[in-house]
Amino acid sequence: MKNIENLLSQHQEDWSLDQEFYKDQSIFNLEKKKILFNSWIFTGHESQIPNKGDYFLYKLLEEEIIILRNKENEIKAFFNVCRHRGSRICLNEGGNVKRLTCPYHSWTFNLDGKLLAAKSLRDGIDKATLNLHPCNIEVIAGMLFINLSDDPQSLDNLRRDLKEPFDMFGFTDMKIAAHKNYPIASNWKLAVENYQECYHCAPSHPEYSLSHTLKIEDEPGFDEAQEKMRSNLESCGLKDIEVDKDFSNKDKDQEQYAYSRYALFDGYITGSEDGKPLAPLLGNIKDFNQGCSDFNLGPVSYFLAYCDHVVGYVFTPTSLDKCQCDVYWLVNKDAEEGKDYDMEKLMWLWDVTTYADETIIVNNQKGVDSFKYEPGPYTDKEKSARSFIKWYLNELR
Amino acid sequence: MKNIENLLSQHQEDWSLDQEFYKDQSIFNLEKKKILFNSWIFTGHESQIPNKGDYFLYKLLEEEIIILRNKENEIKAFFNVCRHRGSRICLNEGGNVKRLTCPYHSWTFNLDGKLLAAKSLRDGIDKATLNLHPCNIEVIAGMLFINLSDDPQSLDNLRRDLKEPFDMFGFTDMKIAAHKNYPIASNWKLAVENYQECYHCAPSHPEYSLSHTLKIEDEPGFDEAQEKMRSNLESCGLKDIEVDKDFSNKDKDQEQYAYSRYALFDGYITGSEDGKPLAPLLGNIKDFNQGCSDFNLGPVSYFLAYCDHVVGYVFTPTSLDKCQCDVYWLVNKDAEEGKDYDMEKLMWLWDVTTYADETIIVNNQKGVDSFKYEPGPYTDKEKSARSFIKWYLNELR
Amino acid sequence: MKNIENLLSQHQEDWSLDQEFYKDQSIFNLEKKKILFNSWIFTGHESQIPNKGDYFLYKLLEEEIIILRNKENEIKAFFNVCRHRGSRICLNEGGNVKRLTCPYHSWTFNLDGKLLAAKSLRDGIDKATLNLHPCNIEVIAGMLFINLSDDPQSLDNLRRDLKEPFDMFGFTDMKIAAHKNYPIASNWKLAVENYQECYHCAPSHPEYSLSHTLKIEDEPGFDEAQEKMRSNLESCGLKDIEVDKDFSNKDKDQEQYAYSRYALFDGYITGSEDGKPLAPLLGNIKDFNQGCSDFNLGPVSYFLAYCDHVVGYVFTPTSLDKCQCDVYWLVNKDAEEGKDYDMEKLMWLWDVTTYADETIIVNNQKGVDSFKYEPGPYTDKEKSARSFIKWYLNELR
Repeated sequence: MKNIENLLSQHQEDWSLDQEFYKDQSIFNLEKKKILFNSWIFTGHESQIPNKGDYFLYKLLEEEIIILRNKENEIKAFFNVCRHRGSRICLNEGGNVKRLTCPYHSWTFNLDGKLLAAKSLRDGIDKATLNLHPCNIEVIAGMLFINLSDDPQSLDNLRRDLKEPFDMFGFTDMKIAAHKNYPIASNWKLAVENYQECYHCAPSHPEYSLSHTLKIEDEPGFDEAQEKMRSNLESCGLKDIEVDKDFSNKDKDQEQYAYSRYALFDGYITGSEDGKPLAPLLGNIKDFNQGCSDFNLGPVSYFLAYCDHVVGYVFTPTSLDKCQCDVYWLVNKDAEEGKDYDMEKLMWLWDVTTYADETIIVNNQKGVDSFKYEPGPYTDKEKSARSFIKWYLNELR
Repeated sequence: MKNIENLLSQHQEDWSLDQEFYKDQSIFNLEKKKILFNSWIFTGHESQIPNKGDYFLYKLLEEEIIILRNKENEIKAFFNVCRHRGSRICLNEGGNVKRLTCPYHSWTFNLDGKLLAAKSLRDGIDKATLNLHPCNIEVIAGMLFINLSDDPQSLDNLRRDLKEPFDMFGFTDMKIAAHKNYPIASNWKLAVENYQECYHCAPSHPEYSLSHTLKIEDEPGFDEAQEKMRSNLESCGLKDIEVDKDFSNKDKDQEQYAYSRYALFDGYITGSEDGKPLAPLLGNIKDFNQGCSDFNLGPVSYFLAYCDHVVGYVFTPTSLDKCQCDVYWLVNKDAEEGKDYDMEKLMWLWDVTTYADETIIVNNQKGVDSFKYEPGPYTDKEKSARSFIKWYLNELR
Repeated sequence: MKNIENLLSQHQEDWSLDQEFYKDQSIFNLEKKKILFNSWIFTGHESQIPNKGDYFLYKLLEEEIIILRNKENEIKAFFNVCRHRGSRICLNEGGNVKRLTCPYHSWTFNLDGKLLAAKSLRDGIDKATLNLHPCNIEVIAGMLFINLSDDPQSLDNLRRDLKEPFDMFGFTDMKIAAHKNYPIASNWKLAVENYQECYHCAPSHPEYSLSHTLKIEDEPGFDEAQEKMRSNLESCGLKDIEVDKDFSNKDKDQEQYAYSRYALFDGYITGSEDGKPLAPLLGNIKDFNQGCSDFNLGPVSYFLAYCDHVVGYVFTPTSLDKCQCDVYWLVNKDAEEGKDYDMEKLMWLWDVTTYADETIIVNNQKGVDSFKYEPGPYTDKEKSARSFIKWYLNELR
């Protein structure tokens, strides 16, 4: 086994990663420490826990985080680990509680994680040292992001630079209409790389390719579509903005993020099969338009915002060689299923596309497992994947 | 990874173990050598193999032991490994044989493990060097205990100190009425720790708590129950004895053991749902009484003896992160199922309790797997678990 | 863990292997490099891909090899790994293609593995450096053998010495009538050792033992059977030949091989249940006779040739502790199923025998896993297994 320093120093920029990055357990352990447990990750929306005492669990590898609304109406998060002998405290996926009582020996904590009761605790042991371990949690325009590290990167720049689009789409006033988990038999980075490039969209995603610009400049109709998008955006009074699409440019102490806006092909005003609306307009948007926005919020959470709904993607490992894609469909909080939107139609595009991607990614992993695999050249059409890899290697250093 | 010496030296007495003790494969390997394969383990009762040539298999991790009665009516045990090329010899769970013949190439051994026939053995190879590997086995009041080490600890003190209760309950004259295997997705020590303390009984075991003193001195009714037990025991002419409840006090060359006696709550004369008898009286016991006895025989075998039946518990790992609980129900050898006891009623209490414990233990393991888990303080009500942990760490040293 | 040099130097000749050779991942990794990926392995017959563009996949551990017939009618083999980012290219088990197009990003290769098209490839990257990785493939009398190393051993001696029997049986003019995969929960060497000796045939294979000489010289009827075979072979004008039955004698730069010929018991002229023919005569064979031939072609591919059909055996690992046996039944290419042969009858003998062997081998592995397992003496009747082990250890050195 080559060591990690050698691997990092021998990496050739803009070529794909060496096999070890996808197969070596020690690199995966390093990734957990330096990336996964040191990044902000989307876990849900505050509309899921509207009342004091409401909670839900977020699970990531061996970790479970209790995300709750306390008695002061604040969102808090705690590791689901009793300070007595380590038992899980909350066993249900969610619910409403007055306090957190461990089912094993009835140790009881309040909604701020403070140990209230621990029967027969030995003399000389200070209850105040046995509160639940808190987990960093931040609410960004209603979206709940956690970070498992003790010293998380700042979200200030992200909040500042993306305020306008967050407001435009009204993220604060959304709700999660659907959530589906897609297991993928691959290392998590192959799933992120796949999401980061649309070089594969024409061969692999016929449904998507009907409505979405392929981000490939030499596709027929690309220029016209771009032009239409621009005029369209302008006619809606929206700016064509692009924020820091290169992960590798980010400040060391700030979480990375990116934003860009583009247009759908003619005949489509949202990501639907027939091009017609799927749900009520979001936020400040006055009329349907062909505009479509991409958000990168941290390294594993991605959002695609249409005029009437948002699709969220979160890629997380479940082991060295398996990962999962959590897809969330968000609509205006007042929209009613059956009346204002049809669940099957809402989910259609990104459900078929995610299943197609799963097949692609798994076949990519199989080939990467071969002893003959060697890094290949990223093309001109894989710029975001290239910047993701550059950022990734920097984080490991 | 911290090394084992550091982990042992940094352990804080009466606090739970560091995560590594539950997750590290090298520690598990050490446990196999120093504890599991170096302790006496209950495997069954000699009533299972009453006739010459009767045998059954006992399985523990990769090991299979053939336990048999030889032609001289002695109980013997052998590793189920042919000395030719290593094949399993006995493939059935039990049966009656005249000799042990390997199904692969027909090498044949007598019931003392001696190689009788090995066709085409090369010149110069001495058959006498190719006998089956024997395994230590001892019969203690009819119970069969094996020890896989070459130099097992003595059972002399155990036999001497526990002779009286073994006679009182008549272990020699019992039979196994039922045996059930409960797989548990946890490290084996979490299962033993759970068995060793009743701090969790009130929150977790409503069925048990109806009839059994909770061993928690500040429970309502505890003193009265203890008082009743004592007078009850005295009226039966039995002593209230307690033998070495602290595992960590044992002699280095003696297997550890413990014995104690307590009373059930009023209205219960055995561990049944309605408090009524379940089977004919055992041993020398003349009348039903509320007395109840706990035996620890070695580190993984535990017995709970009522006036009319005994429940045996054996905890063994099946891997680093999985274990099993083998529960045995013993009754007087002459008792007939359907007439003298009802199997479902007999098994009820410890079947529901073991399933409840399985859930608790698995949730404990899940929390211990978190990177935020850290050792917590054992309470005043977890004394046996504390002494088990102390003993365990001493054994690893 | 003892290191490999110690294990090799302490090995006692003609005793079975130490446990580590069956359980240690680092030894398995060495075997992959020095043996499995450095030997010729039977993968099929050229009759499977008669037309230009026909292909099938051969899978071995993490490797997939595309075996195809190119536009010049040559047989070629390539690793199924795209040179872009490593995706599998062919996803189906077989088919007919004009060129090889990766489903991920449409990189396209011709049937000689040359990269034809890679859209948006960056400036300065030479397409000619991104051809598919070729795999060594050789056609031996119609049989397809691959070798994954860059510097494979020569097949010249094998071709020269076995030309006569290949011609006699007409391997070139055969087809694969059936192929069945048998998974075996054991290290692959236990399966090869089992195939290499018939010491176990009498106890384990009653069906086989009815018709086949047991290769055990002291079996009743052995001499008579041998005599009959010789006269029988002579009466057919065939020579009784034996080529290099000792793996360990082979030249370092030549692939190892062996050939021998023996007779079935009276009443059997092929490997059928009733002793009667199963299919049309093969090759140059004029009349049915009791002759039967054994071929070893490389370390994992074995063939048993009767007058009317050939059974091929290929043993390959699927992990350290699991392997598979691929069994192929070959008949004359013009034979028609249902008319000239009955599939069930054709497969009967080696199907029942392989299932019986699987049970034996798995029980051998279980015993080898015991910490009490130690090497045992091969007998006089296990000569081929002994020479296999000797060869195996030499290869690791």
